[in-house]
Amino acid sequence: MRNFLLIGLFLVSTLAIAQRNNGKGMLYLDENRRPIYRENIMIPEVNGYEVLKCDFHTHTVFSDGHVWPNVRNQEAWEEGLDALAITDHIEYTPHKDDVKVAHNRGYELLKEGTAKNNIILVKGTEITRNTPPGHFNAIYIGDASGYIEGRSNEQDRAAVMKAATQNSFIFWNHPGWQPGIEGSYEWIDFVDDLSRSKALHGIEVINGFGIHLKALDWCIDKGLTVMGSSDIHNLVAHDYDRSKEYVHRTMTLVMAKERTPEGIREALDAGRTVAWASKYLAGKEENVRALFNACVELLPSHYTEVRGNGNKTNWYEIRNNSDLYFELEVKEGSGTKRVVLYPRSAQLISAPAATTSLTYDVTSTYVRSDKHLSVELPLR
Amino acid sequence: MRNFLLIGLFLVSTLAIAQRNNGKGMLYLDENRRPIYRENIMIPEVNGYEVLKCDFHTHTVFSDGHVWPNVRNQEAWEEGLDALAITDHIEYTPHKDDVKVAHNRGYELLKEGTAKNNIILVKGTEITRNTPPGHFNAIYIGDASGYIEGRSNEQDRAAVMKAATQNSFIFWNHPGWQPGIEGSYEWIDFVDDLSRSKALHGIEVINGFGIHLKALDWCIDKGLTVMGSSDIHNLVAHDYDRSKEYVHRTMTLVMAKERTPEGIREALDAGRTVAWASKYLAGKEENVRALFNACVELLPSHYTEVRGNGNKTNWYEIRNNSDLYFELEVKEGSGTKRVVLYPRSAQLISAPAATTSLTYDVTSTYVRSDKHLSVELPLR
Amino acid sequence: MRNFLLIGLFLVSTLAIAQRNNGKGMLYLDENRRPIYRENIMIPEVNGYEVLKCDFHTHTVFSDGHVWPNVRNQEAWEEGLDALAITDHIEYTPHKDDVKVAHNRGYELLKEGTAKNNIILVKGTEITRNTPPGHFNAIYIGDASGYIEGRSNEQDRAAVMKAATQNSFIFWNHPGWQPGIEGSYEWIDFVDDLSRSKALHGIEVINGFGIHLKALDWCIDKGLTVMGSSDIHNLVAHDYDRSKEYVHRTMTLVMAKERTPEGIREALDAGRTVAWASKYLAGKEENVRALFNACVELLPSHYTEVRGNGNKTNWYEIRNNSDLYFELEVKEGSGTKRVVLYPRSAQLISAPAATTSLTYDVTSTYVRSDKHLSVELPLR
Amino acid sequence: MRNFLLIGLFLVSTLAIAQRNNGKGMLYLDENRRPIYRENIMIPEVNGYEVLKCDFHTHTVFSDGHVWPNVRNQEAWEEGLDALAITDHIEYTPHKDDVKVAHNRGYELLKEGTAKNNIILVKGTEITRNTPPGHFNAIYIGDASGYIEGRSNEQDRAAVMKAATQNSFIFWNHPGWQPGIEGSYEWIDFVDDLSRSKALHGIEVINGFGIHLKALDWCIDKGLTVMGSSDIHNLVAHDYDRSKEYVHRTMTLVMAKERTPEGIREALDAGRTVAWASKYLAGKEENVRALFNACVELLPSHYTEVRGNGNKTNWYEIRNNSDLYFELEVKEGSGTKRVVLYPRSAQLISAPAATTSLTYDVTSTYVRSDKHLSVELPLR
Repeated sequence: MRNFLLIGLFLVSTLAIAQRNNGKGMLYLDENRRPIYRENIMIPEVNGYEVLKCDFHTHTVFSDGHVWPNVRNQEAWEEGLDALAITDHIEYTPHKDDVKVAHNRGYELLKEGTAKNNIILVKGTEITRNTPPGHFNAIYIGDASGYIEGRSNEQDRAAVMKAATQNSFIFWNHPGWQPGIEGSYEWIDFVDDLSRSKALHGIEVINGFGIHLKALDWCIDKGLTVMGSSDIHNLVAHDYDRSKEYVHRTMTLVMAKERTPEGIREALDAGRTVAWASKYLAGKEENVRALFNACVELLPSHYTEVRGNGNKTNWYEIRNNSDLYFELEVKEGSGTKRVVLYPRSAQLISAPAATTSLTYDVTSTYVRSDKHLSVELPLR
Repeated sequence: MRNFLLIGLFLVSTLAIAQRNNGKGMLYLDENRRPIYRENIMIPEVNGYEVLKCDFHTHTVFSDGHVWPNVRNQEAWEEGLDALAITDHIEYTPHKDDVKVAHNRGYELLKEGTAKNNIILVKGTEITRNTPPGHFNAIYIGDASGYIEGRSNEQDRAAVMKAATQNSFIFWNHPGWQPGIEGSYEWIDFVDDLSRSKALHGIEVINGFGIHLKALDWCIDKGLTVMGSSDIHNLVAHDYDRSKEYVHRTMTLVMAKERTPEGIREALDAGRTVAWASKYLAGKEENVRALFNACVELLPSHYTEVRGNGNKTNWYEIRNNSDLYFELEVKEGSGTKRVVLYPRSAQLISAPAATTSLTYDVTSTYVRSDKHLSVELPLR
Repeated sequence: MRNFLLIGLFLVSTLAIAQRNNGKGMLYLDENRRPIYRENIMIPEVNGYEVLKCDFHTHTVFSDGHVWPNVRNQEAWEEGLDALAITDHIEYTPHKDDVKVAHNRGYELLKEGTAKNNIILVKGTEITRNTPPGHFNAIYIGDASGYIEGRSNEQDRAAVMKAATQNSFIFWNHPGWQPGIEGSYEWIDFVDDLSRSKALHGIEVINGFGIHLKALDWCIDKGLTVMGSSDIHNLVAHDYDRSKEYVHRTMTLVMAKERTPEGIREALDAGRTVAWASKYLAGKEENVRALFNACVELLPSHYTEVRGNGNKTNWYEIRNNSDLYFELEVKEGSGTKRVVLYPRSAQLISAPAATTSLTYDVTSTYVRSDKHLSVELPLR
Repeated sequence: MRNFLLIGLFLVSTLAIAQRNNGKGMLYLDENRRPIYRENIMIPEVNGYEVLKCDFHTHTVFSDGHVWPNVRNQEAWEEGLDALAITDHIEYTPHKDDVKVAHNRGYELLKEGTAKNNIILVKGTEITRNTPPGHFNAIYIGDASGYIEGRSNEQDRAAVMKAATQNSFIFWNHPGWQPGIEGSYEWIDFVDDLSRSKALHGIEVINGFGIHLKALDWCIDKGLTVMGSSDIHNLVAHDYDRSKEYVHRTMTLVMAKERTPEGIREALDAGRTVAWASKYLAGKEENVRALFNACVELLPSHYTEVRGNGNKTNWYEIRNNSDLYFELEVKEGSGTKRVVLYPRSAQLISAPAATTSLTYDVTSTYVRSDKHLSVELPLR
């Protein structure tokens, strides 16, 4: 049979079977190569929407990032992203002695590669002003050149408004990133004006390794969309501990009607997003709840334990059918106090046989700066 | 807010935040503990059947295993098994100076623990005769004591027939394990007689780290069920390299109407099984094909590349929505030659735009000793 | 050349090169096996003493452990232990309906296997009384049968004194393990009497995942030896997260003149030990300091950075030449505030050029319940 | 005590103890960050020489690499390299529409960063001609601008000779990389002439994942230095499977009198190098043997096993005290047939008591294209 190339190699050494040899003095050490594949992040559909993994805040050598744009494509593909934006700074180009300043260039260089990789490339930029107000990302933009670069309040406003006239989706970046600067983490007039002028559509509630909980409240109270993004400058593999199964770059989960640029834009405009930072989820309550319900499944009781005193305890299996992470703490009911649901895992919980439901805080989620998602699990 | 116990600990050290302290001179080092959870092995439903992960061949200190029975329960739970049998040898009890010989004991000791863990415990035993014929596993047995233990052909037959009278499901274990013994890997009269007497229902096509390809042919030709099992004596974590994502203990995938002992038995009797050994699947063609089709998804073309010569190439994404592993080699059509689908991953394939289908051998599967599953992928 | 078995296999598949085939219908899946080897834990000599890795508190099915004794040998070998004691409970044998009670049996069953593995097997037992006083381990014991098993204070004392008459090395186990029981974590009269009677030689300052800091003070104040042990009942691979490079089972580092049973006993009697629990070390200051100095190396400055204001900063490399983990926080001097030294790693530290030394607390160590090792690093 | 910030947090949740909170609505998710440290690759001194880990073949965006030069510094530091050269192509600058062509620029941009990181930065370039002769690396060069870029044989020679006049160390890159081009993997006149003109000092015997065994013979026969290098264009973390403990980027191990640029140059000129590609070592026999002897230690027999027939077998422990990998196959003597020594590990070997030595081929090494290092292990 032709498949059995190694017939008879019963006691062959490990090395011999791991190396390829071209018969002309070359050995190829494929076993040392990293296997290259696209991660298929498992998140079930949520109310009929596909959950798309999107990062709309990344940098390259065309501003202050450390990599050529193709690395962002390569990373996004391997990490299973559905959509990506390069958002190099308009106003901050520290490599300009070596790299020609060209604000559309990152996008142009990536168009074909992302298309081949089945990644939706959204054109974007980062409008980078003093803090406050700080930085704004504009995605779905038109021409990225010609943005006003001054430092006055009027110039700042003009830059953001230009993005708005391009029908961009605009979000305020990492509002809490400079805790020492007064006004940097407040709902200031400048932002309020943008919001009222329909020139602000979302806020980065999570940026990289920081969660801006106050921004979550603003999103809810002002009707803005909750965003999460990596703001990656270095290599994703450098910053994130990807050896932990639950660690992914920070991103926005977008619940879209279809996996297209337009489908994503519709969902962003409608606010159907959850910011995802490895163990943490932050978003509007209805979105976080829908996501939780799609991912976590409580099975009917499989066993009744009768203890020495005649008391009966029912046992249940709770399954996480997703690559998300959830941590629960009981709030009402006398069942299992704490449940950690690693990606694609299950746990046992128990409660007295008479208990009909348990109420848990999902402490790995935020639906307000001071509030976790609360879920009532009916026991059968 | 009461959740924020650590308010203000801005520059706290790694150690301080990783340790718990009871305030009385005790530190608890939880971060060094292994997280304990049940793996939720992702395999989609196959034609409406639930795919149950079953290991019906394991050992404990009650024969020549290295662990107390509870370890088998603990391992099975963590590894995400649905069903388990302890099959200690009737005739081989090397610990008998220390451990009382009691053939029902492993099962009795595990009944409550597996019930609590939502694992289906099937009562079993290993009938352990000279080779040939070798060893037979009987599961769904009654009383395991009183099996005849002699070494003659008649006594061998009587032991297996006793299992048959208990309405057991009987399978022949690891037929190729002793390559040096004549007749040990042949379809001998003894086995043929058992099969004709309805006292043989399956064969271990995969046992631990060995695939017995000839046994696959016998299963197909004689209408027997394909079994895979670990035959684990040591710790699963000792024998298997679980640091590799695709490595699991060898087991039988059972496509069952329901997740009950009866549901599994019906599927075993009907032959709806595939033996699974990490990267490898072996089974009857219809079962392997149904499993492949449930797990692997080819998307419509997302991109047409136009090369310099005007030739067009279409690009496609192929997704593995399961924890299984598949490796494909093209047999017909001029598309991508080789595709490796790691668990929950995707790859790109390409083909000239005019190509309407590609035929691949799924080289990580066996549907005959000399035949891989062949799949035709229609290109849209 | 005969080594090149695979000449010409230029485009062979991954699977074909990973499997062995005996040419008779058998495939062997060696790549799924866990590689089996003995870890060579790197700890340099300390003042001419060899640092031996010892665990003198482990259990098997002969008391309430989950494994046959051979598993303890196998684990110890793979984890790189130099010495091991099986210390099954005298008074607690929950498997006695199935396993004959025999207090010398674990030791007897392991003697040959550990000898072959180059592991020093020390005979031991756990004297298991009510708490307080709790449990005592006796190692280097004689016959383990015939220990008095009653529950009165006199019977407790008699049991420990019997061990003393056998010239055993006796240590008090996990004094803080039952925080709810009054007197369980106090220097009670019973223990004081044993100590004065030369029938107590050490205390478990670390047991598994718990550090009993008060016990460290007692060791120092009463002249007892600091012990660390796993008290493992389940599988080591079950309890410990060995995927983290710095996680090992809790053990005693013994600084011995020679790697023999006598060498270890001399060091235990002389108190030359440090208890080791993954990131943590606890011991008498002189021992912890000697160990730190043997493992950590500060290099001369390799670079002087001149900042804009003309200020000069010197840079230094600090190397950890061991498999231990150290975490440092600066106490005196204006240099780098916090240094984490993972196993076999280095970090950079910096200080103004005029600085001649930096004083750090090694916060991953304890030399008193309220004191870390303090080290002064001279800067060159 | 001030160190115990968490006193009383006995039942605190996992999340609460893993996150930092600034008390103003910000959470910091440090646990998702990758720990940043410099790997301390353990290789003992060899005959009084320090073994330096050097990669003299890397690329950046200044030619066809994917990263800004600082990434090469960052990678080198984390991977524990002692010395690094950026060797961007003189003649191949595909990013030139965006990145100004400047052949000294990568070196200039890295000088301070590598100095701070205690990495020896050697100035280099890749002279990139047609194949054959192919590519040459020149390190320890002067000004990298003004190299002749034509494509004739004379121009090729002139470019290499210019490097020679700068007193560079010149090595021929990856001679076997284009197996389809005639003369590309031959000792051609052009190279012979360079060698005779003292304008060729070494050959890349290993480049990335390919071993050019014929080049090893040329090094030995012509007195050239054996080089190994990564030729990295993408991210090291992308190309290499660093989750395997024995996988490192391909590099040259340089046995130097001192860890300085001059120390390395002296060792290169003297030919004291071994090329290292994860499991594989290639070099001149004396160098490979010295390295093996420094790393691998055979202990005196620790146990004599007496089998049933009275035959005695001695057991020995063989230790690998390094981060290198060795695989041995017995050639003479009736002892253990195959030994795999993972980094920092040990194995047992055995032999009949009368055996006084065993001779092994170290099959993971090459000292000629057709010859492994052969070692005789004396048994005591």
